[in-house]
Amino acid sequence: MKDHAAVKAALRAMRIETPSWAYGNSGTRFKVYAQAGVPRDAYEKVADAAMVHRLTAAAPSVALHIPWDRVDDYADLARFAADQGIRIGAINPNVFQENDYKLGSVCHPDPGVRRKAVDHLLECVDIMDATGSQVLSLWFADGTNYAGQDSIAARQDRLADALREVYDRLGPDQRMLVEYKLFEPHFYSMDVPDWGTSYAHCVALGDKAQVLVDTGHHAPGTNIEFLVTVLLRFGKLGGFHFNSRNYADDDLMVGAADPFQLFRIAHELVRADAIRPDSGVEYMLDQCHNLEAKVPALIRSVLNVQEAVAKALLVDADALATAQQAGDVLGAHGVLMDAFSTDVRPLLAELRTELGVDPDPIAAYHASGYQQQIETARTGGQQAGWGA
Amino acid sequence: MKDHAAVKAALRAMRIETPSWAYGNSGTRFKVYAQAGVPRDAYEKVADAAMVHRLTAAAPSVALHIPWDRVDDYADLARFAADQGIRIGAINPNVFQENDYKLGSVCHPDPGVRRKAVDHLLECVDIMDATGSQVLSLWFADGTNYAGQDSIAARQDRLADALREVYDRLGPDQRMLVEYKLFEPHFYSMDVPDWGTSYAHCVALGDKAQVLVDTGHHAPGTNIEFLVTVLLRFGKLGGFHFNSRNYADDDLMVGAADPFQLFRIAHELVRADAIRPDSGVEYMLDQCHNLEAKVPALIRSVLNVQEAVAKALLVDADALATAQQAGDVLGAHGVLMDAFSTDVRPLLAELRTELGVDPDPIAAYHASGYQQQIETARTGGQQAGWGA
Amino acid sequence: MKDHAAVKAALRAMRIETPSWAYGNSGTRFKVYAQAGVPRDAYEKVADAAMVHRLTAAAPSVALHIPWDRVDDYADLARFAADQGIRIGAINPNVFQENDYKLGSVCHPDPGVRRKAVDHLLECVDIMDATGSQVLSLWFADGTNYAGQDSIAARQDRLADALREVYDRLGPDQRMLVEYKLFEPHFYSMDVPDWGTSYAHCVALGDKAQVLVDTGHHAPGTNIEFLVTVLLRFGKLGGFHFNSRNYADDDLMVGAADPFQLFRIAHELVRADAIRPDSGVEYMLDQCHNLEAKVPALIRSVLNVQEAVAKALLVDADALATAQQAGDVLGAHGVLMDAFSTDVRPLLAELRTELGVDPDPIAAYHASGYQQQIETARTGGQQAGWGA
Amino acid sequence: MKDHAAVKAALRAMRIETPSWAYGNSGTRFKVYAQAGVPRDAYEKVADAAMVHRLTAAAPSVALHIPWDRVDDYADLARFAADQGIRIGAINPNVFQENDYKLGSVCHPDPGVRRKAVDHLLECVDIMDATGSQVLSLWFADGTNYAGQDSIAARQDRLADALREVYDRLGPDQRMLVEYKLFEPHFYSMDVPDWGTSYAHCVALGDKAQVLVDTGHHAPGTNIEFLVTVLLRFGKLGGFHFNSRNYADDDLMVGAADPFQLFRIAHELVRADAIRPDSGVEYMLDQCHNLEAKVPALIRSVLNVQEAVAKALLVDADALATAQQAGDVLGAHGVLMDAFSTDVRPLLAELRTELGVDPDPIAAYHASGYQQQIETARTGGQQAGWGA
Repeated sequence: MKDHAAVKAALRAMRIETPSWAYGNSGTRFKVYAQAGVPRDAYEKVADAAMVHRLTAAAPSVALHIPWDRVDDYADLARFAADQGIRIGAINPNVFQENDYKLGSVCHPDPGVRRKAVDHLLECVDIMDATGSQVLSLWFADGTNYAGQDSIAARQDRLADALREVYDRLGPDQRMLVEYKLFEPHFYSMDVPDWGTSYAHCVALGDKAQVLVDTGHHAPGTNIEFLVTVLLRFGKLGGFHFNSRNYADDDLMVGAADPFQLFRIAHELVRADAIRPDSGVEYMLDQCHNLEAKVPALIRSVLNVQEAVAKALLVDADALATAQQAGDVLGAHGVLMDAFSTDVRPLLAELRTELGVDPDPIAAYHASGYQQQIETARTGGQQAGWGA
Repeated sequence: MKDHAAVKAALRAMRIETPSWAYGNSGTRFKVYAQAGVPRDAYEKVADAAMVHRLTAAAPSVALHIPWDRVDDYADLARFAADQGIRIGAINPNVFQENDYKLGSVCHPDPGVRRKAVDHLLECVDIMDATGSQVLSLWFADGTNYAGQDSIAARQDRLADALREVYDRLGPDQRMLVEYKLFEPHFYSMDVPDWGTSYAHCVALGDKAQVLVDTGHHAPGTNIEFLVTVLLRFGKLGGFHFNSRNYADDDLMVGAADPFQLFRIAHELVRADAIRPDSGVEYMLDQCHNLEAKVPALIRSVLNVQEAVAKALLVDADALATAQQAGDVLGAHGVLMDAFSTDVRPLLAELRTELGVDPDPIAAYHASGYQQQIETARTGGQQAGWGA
Repeated sequence: MKDHAAVKAALRAMRIETPSWAYGNSGTRFKVYAQAGVPRDAYEKVADAAMVHRLTAAAPSVALHIPWDRVDDYADLARFAADQGIRIGAINPNVFQENDYKLGSVCHPDPGVRRKAVDHLLECVDIMDATGSQVLSLWFADGTNYAGQDSIAARQDRLADALREVYDRLGPDQRMLVEYKLFEPHFYSMDVPDWGTSYAHCVALGDKAQVLVDTGHHAPGTNIEFLVTVLLRFGKLGGFHFNSRNYADDDLMVGAADPFQLFRIAHELVRADAIRPDSGVEYMLDQCHNLEAKVPALIRSVLNVQEAVAKALLVDADALATAQQAGDVLGAHGVLMDAFSTDVRPLLAELRTELGVDPDPIAAYHASGYQQQIETARTGGQQAGWGA
Repeated sequence: MKDHAAVKAALRAMRIETPSWAYGNSGTRFKVYAQAGVPRDAYEKVADAAMVHRLTAAAPSVALHIPWDRVDDYADLARFAADQGIRIGAINPNVFQENDYKLGSVCHPDPGVRRKAVDHLLECVDIMDATGSQVLSLWFADGTNYAGQDSIAARQDRLADALREVYDRLGPDQRMLVEYKLFEPHFYSMDVPDWGTSYAHCVALGDKAQVLVDTGHHAPGTNIEFLVTVLLRFGKLGGFHFNSRNYADDDLMVGAADPFQLFRIAHELVRADAIRPDSGVEYMLDQCHNLEAKVPALIRSVLNVQEAVAKALLVDADALATAQQAGDVLGAHGVLMDAFSTDVRPLLAELRTELGVDPDPIAAYHASGYQQQIETARTGGQQAGWGA
């Protein structure tokens, strides 16, 4: 086992980004249940994200979603975030919620729609410039519902053209992360359904294009830590959208559905020394809190990631390597499980105390009065939500 | 091969029910794309359903969804349907789209919410009485998103209590069909996730409770024709919600994703002589036409079911039984595939001509001017939709 | 949290049965890798099972598999087991490894093969009488590979007939447990593919027939703790075959692939007070140790079950019920996760010390010299294995 | 629709390779059921493959599996094949059936085992030289069963080293195809689990390395025609191992489980003009005939591929493109389905007559007396099989 000081040092440096949209209302196609206190604009979302960071000391940035978070003055929003103690993280374009996008955005058969979609992506790079964001986080809802509906091959060509145009617009310190997803909102083919497709396009584009792994976007049975390892090996892991799932893209709180899987992913990241903020791997949450209160759910999610990483940091790497090299199946597995079986909550409580925050951020949130305050203050206006 | 006259006689008798909600707008949690000409109330939905029947001569009833199809006078709606040449089919309660139902309806921890939900179910039996409907089609969106969120066992008890109360209210010629679904809108546990759970409750209830099979509600790899056969054997197959899927509850047009599966299901139904209207097995569509035009999509779906059943009717049952009994694996499989490989469209065109409808109902729809008519007439008002 | 004395008392009473076949060689269709020291007959398997019990004080019985464990004198084998400190547990017939069974056993189209299969099942009841076993554990490899190969319906009838004949032969204190499995060794239909099918037959048979849940036999996404809860509710949970899986029927060590799932199952069992030996729920392992050494793998598996149950016993049931009743999603989930996050290894070590066994059974095994002893002694003869 | 002459010309040129091992016995881990008449050496397998070609005029080569098909003089085997009217196709090394390979072959932690495995791969290139084979077909059973058992990252490095050494040994007209598989025989991680991993390594290696798609090796829900299209686009589709599946790597006859999927794949191949023998895409079967007779099963499989391709050739490409470009979802889908619904058996019968073979190859096989002949002649010796 590593000594606790080293473990705490690594955890102290790790940064987890929360997404602005997770503070708004969300739901399923059947119903969006509105919650009291939900933010009504980008500023209120930033305020909530800042609250999560104040309580955890681990979530110093917030991702924006455009046009949901459109403001008149992005520099002002960035300043507001800084005043609150956080910064603007990844910019996430939305090219799926206008009627024009029914049959796709950058892959649409109509060049006019494709032009509109690419223009929106370019606008998002402008917003990156204005906010200092260095990450463009691309997810395309594009796909088809029926075999034959459109040409899979033609859509790949259109995708490549759009990605190239946006890639060429990126500044020297900016990257694009290309997300993939097995299905939904389309049910026959998605235009970027798996990491292989994202990888192939990113290789063709160049060094500033990398793969974004959303932990809920895989086929059943996919070994996520494996593909994370392969992407790290080939230098193409750009970051994560963390969440958890039992069935499909459930968007549950990360670590809630399968904490052992999260630990195994964390183990590969620790092994590759990719937890460091300068590793180039972005750690972002992407979740829907349909039933539970938003802010404490995000706090809980940050803690879940920290617990998984803490356990991974406790793995006795030397003992593991020795057992692996010896072909000691039970022994090597046992070394890993020893770390997983450890209760790391005391260690994390200690770390928080050292960082000057409450050892129990959830309890601290409930004690803070913040929830009552936002429920009282945020009446009137239009609650933020997915807009579906 | 059976002679074509017998095949056509069987097809002539078969009835496929379309659902009122499939004529309205639908979509995913990401976006509902509105279409022109979509009905604005229950009468317009009935009109569209009647159009499908006029063109196919195979869809003589329409299922209602309450409260989406609430009207002041259900007897009047039933008369309107009769005037259009169809009748009111199954009544589908909705206990998932009010804020009270966030944590469940009949399984909710709060007895007040459960009371409200059961009262709505009882109201739907009243509507059955008023419309002459004999089928109460029950689907519960109830479930939980997180382990521990609620007691699975307590929820089962609440479910049983609610079902019992509604069961006891049914008239002598009325049945309740209990649908199941693996997941969505909840992502940890559903309160009726599989046919086994539905079956166990229906057995406990009595003869008027049967299982409803929605072809899109199973875990990957589930052999649907198998469970259909088992349900038939134990007398508990109440009917179908037909649709097709590649991934989850995609709600695509039946037969579009896997026509061979639909044929295999049809084969078991033909074998059990369950295609007959008096078999007690209800054939209903339950689909979402997110991208494609509604009315022609429903026509196409009716045709797809007919083609699958026609192929199943063409199976040489004697040759099949002989090969099966002899353990001739390739021979028996070959007998089934012979029927599937047959192009039954000419036979169905012949049947339609005999029935006095156009041999190509899709072409007839496009030639009818109906689409232009509804797009022109149905402006203003509130388009029907899922209401999410 | 319950007090530790109560937790330890519950754990002290819990019994986990190991399977004789897990001590023999196993593998995949591609290769069975032989291991040194593997038993060559039923007596040596019993000896290994006894060793597991001596080290864990938790595995006091061993399941037999017939004909793999056929002996001349079963009473003698039972005495040998008793001398070693354990007893004979469930009897598992094998009706899949003779050429006659290529197209099935009790579901075979040929009545002669069905007769042979049923006779073997009846022979196994004789062995139950001779050994004092009270559990007949039935798994049928029966199924088909191709649509049309055989009649699903006819096979269900044959299955029902066979089960009935065997059921009627059971003694007053004997039960039959009917296992199900999604697929393998057949790949189109299995004759008992899911718990619903097993349940329907068991209900038809009577009280002495119950469902056996093998944790590796489900479709992807199946919520096992849910169906366990339903089976408990309807009085039809007969027991478990524990193992773990990532993909299909992987037969890995229980708790290795998804320890959180095992904990959730344990939580439902604790809630229903079904851990007690007189609960009627049998806890059995059914695993393949293709790569790892057999005896320590089984020890490890027993420990994994104990850890999951210990955590489940630590759940604060009152706090959980309160949060559930209040609709406090995050609070209720948190109560469950608190127990899961706890490191229960110290508590279990304490329990073992109280029971007079080594607190670390794996280390004790390695220190015992048993592995070297069996590797030296068990040369010559025919190693036990799956016989494929 | 294309004219039938063009369709027949395309079909006439298409070549489907059968695998030597499919003529031998196969089974599951539970049981291998032996069949009468099964070949006992490579020559008899070649004879069976030649029989399939004589009856279908579409299967002019046979893939070898080393060491199962080891002979003293490969040039002699190639001459024997030529005398029978076929040629030797792909060479398939086997690095999973010796005890040394328990923990892997080219990814094994022990460099000695890796050396042995690479040497076997190099020996297979020698056999390619001797037989004139231009395709090395690589599948690695390598993987792990437990998290932590070995280092995923280290195994990737070892894999890359081995592939590089073999790649550099290839002659100017030789290629290596790298197959992937989700799971089995390992159940936690496979070292090449998906097309993305295979693709990444092939890109790193160079033009002579391409991806091999086995249609049974994907996660549930994978859209195979999509990834085929992407691989074609990036020039990395080397070929297929055709078979079909309902659950896992079932290795059923191609087209038996989901004929519509096979058609969709064929549609993408036709679209890309990849059916031509000089397209660089190899069409190979890889199946297990556990229950059914081997030679007729392979004939049937060849016919199934032909039927799917024939339907794909009948797609009205112009009408499809027009509807796709217009965003006509139902219309475009309908164009594709028109071709699928067509009964192409008459067209194929016509083609066979033109080619001088029986229009019904299955009937011709049964009439030929070949089965009786091999059952009589092939007694004694050791039946070929998977050797597990």
